[in-house]
Amino acid sequence: MKKIVVIGVGLIGGSFALDIKRVYKDAVIYGVDESDTHLDEALELQVIDKKAELNEISNADLVIVSIPVDATVKHISKVLDLVSDTTLVIDVGSTKEAICEVIDTHKNRRNFLAAHPIAGTEFSGPKAAKQHLFNGKTMIICEVEKTAFKLQEKALQLFSNVGMRIRYMNPKAHDKHIAYVSHLSHISSFMLGKTVIEKEKNERDIFDMAGSGFESTVRLAKSSPDMWTPIFKQNKANVVETLEEYINNLSKFKQFMEADNFEAIHSEMKNTNHIKDILNGII
Amino acid sequence: MKKIVVIGVGLIGGSFALDIKRVYKDAVIYGVDESDTHLDEALELQVIDKKAELNEISNADLVIVSIPVDATVKHISKVLDLVSDTTLVIDVGSTKEAICEVIDTHKNRRNFLAAHPIAGTEFSGPKAAKQHLFNGKTMIICEVEKTAFKLQEKALQLFSNVGMRIRYMNPKAHDKHIAYVSHLSHISSFMLGKTVIEKEKNERDIFDMAGSGFESTVRLAKSSPDMWTPIFKQNKANVVETLEEYINNLSKFKQFMEADNFEAIHSEMKNTNHIKDILNGII
Repeated sequence: MKKIVVIGVGLIGGSFALDIKRVYKDAVIYGVDESDTHLDEALELQVIDKKAELNEISNADLVIVSIPVDATVKHISKVLDLVSDTTLVIDVGSTKEAICEVIDTHKNRRNFLAAHPIAGTEFSGPKAAKQHLFNGKTMIICEVEKTAFKLQEKALQLFSNVGMRIRYMNPKAHDKHIAYVSHLSHISSFMLGKTVIEKEKNERDIFDMAGSGFESTVRLAKSSPDMWTPIFKQNKANVVETLEEYINNLSKFKQFMEADNFEAIHSEMKNTNHIKDILNGII
Repeated sequence: MKKIVVIGVGLIGGSFALDIKRVYKDAVIYGVDESDTHLDEALELQVIDKKAELNEISNADLVIVSIPVDATVKHISKVLDLVSDTTLVIDVGSTKEAICEVIDTHKNRRNFLAAHPIAGTEFSGPKAAKQHLFNGKTMIICEVEKTAFKLQEKALQLFSNVGMRIRYMNPKAHDKHIAYVSHLSHISSFMLGKTVIEKEKNERDIFDMAGSGFESTVRLAKSSPDMWTPIFKQNKANVVETLEEYINNLSKFKQFMEADNFEAIHSEMKNTNHIKDILNGII
């Protein structure tokens, strides 16, 4: 792989760029981004080697599309229009159903691989890019059978080279499950942050009392609204369902407290404690 | 300080024991615990020097009470009955109003200091004890004026020696604010864990898709129900209030989604983003 185009030089695209440069010594990374500031930053940080326009795609070996999921759905057909026979286009967004649908009948569908790396931080932009972000992490691949065999191989080689393990899944199942283990966590964090900030308006110094537990639960509330709003929009039905179940569980907990049923409170927590073993399995 | 009695040799009591041994070289730590297994563990791990009974208190320099908050309220009067004039008794529980009330008119009230270290992990028991847990952390002290001046000095010296900064607060304000920045975070984590675990019963492999964001938001769901049930019970009114506000915020977010009002969703997140600066201030 020599010519790589990264569309969207933020946290995920930038981290792929850094890892690709580390693993493929003669790779040249072309950065495309609607923000010129981001492109200049990425160039200065040596995340990319050159600033480029979309037409650079035509003879690229690999194109990574790492932009907000609404922009991906909007631009992906144009990207696929431009590729050559040997170009692999990987989309790394957090929702998979809409994107798979929109390119399903594209004449270059076989050049495309739908993927979702379960990796990231609460930060965004080129400065957030870092080497080894994907090491030991899971890559979810959707509809692998629709990608040309040689390009599948190329992708798997790349993912393996940066240290990822692979899980195959259909787009519908992906979007449903990811709502539970990722999207809901973000909303829970944002609303927790909001609840405490609202309180703080009237009660000064409340944050002096916050410790690592609070920090841990609200960390995701630092995430980018520009990235997350389109995700929630595309995955609306699933996210609303998870929110409903979460709110029901919280309301039940509150009712137990109001009824002084602390045996139930104890067993609610006890029954959830085995999250320990589950987390040990995934981390 | 030579003779120290730690009542409750778990995460917090054990961590104080370890730090005290590090800072006061000739200190001898006596451990008291209703669990013999915990005492044996603490002795083997050299968290304590000797197993002891409550009557060891009579000529101790320092007594640290670090047991579930309902047990503290139940036993604290008996503890204060036993102390000598120069014994300092520090309670380190997560609620302060009930404990301050129950010993308010005790004849040895001046031997008592109500404190709450904003430090901890999601683990419990003697194995969870660790050195330097309190370094750089906040110690909240309530009703300091009710503690004998010389014993205040002794306590402040200890807290400073283990690296803590001090905040003074009345018990009522403590319990109200801590509900927001600690108790609510725990419930949010437990119920998030519950929501996902319930889903997983029907949908296998869902946890394969969980990443560091999920881990961060459900970490506190590993916490001990034996410790947290009494906290929620003692701080019921405040915790119910925070839950109400949290559930309202989540419901509003869900309504915005259902109404396809993604501008509102964006601004909800944007407005909460400044949690960044707040967290930078506290960590």
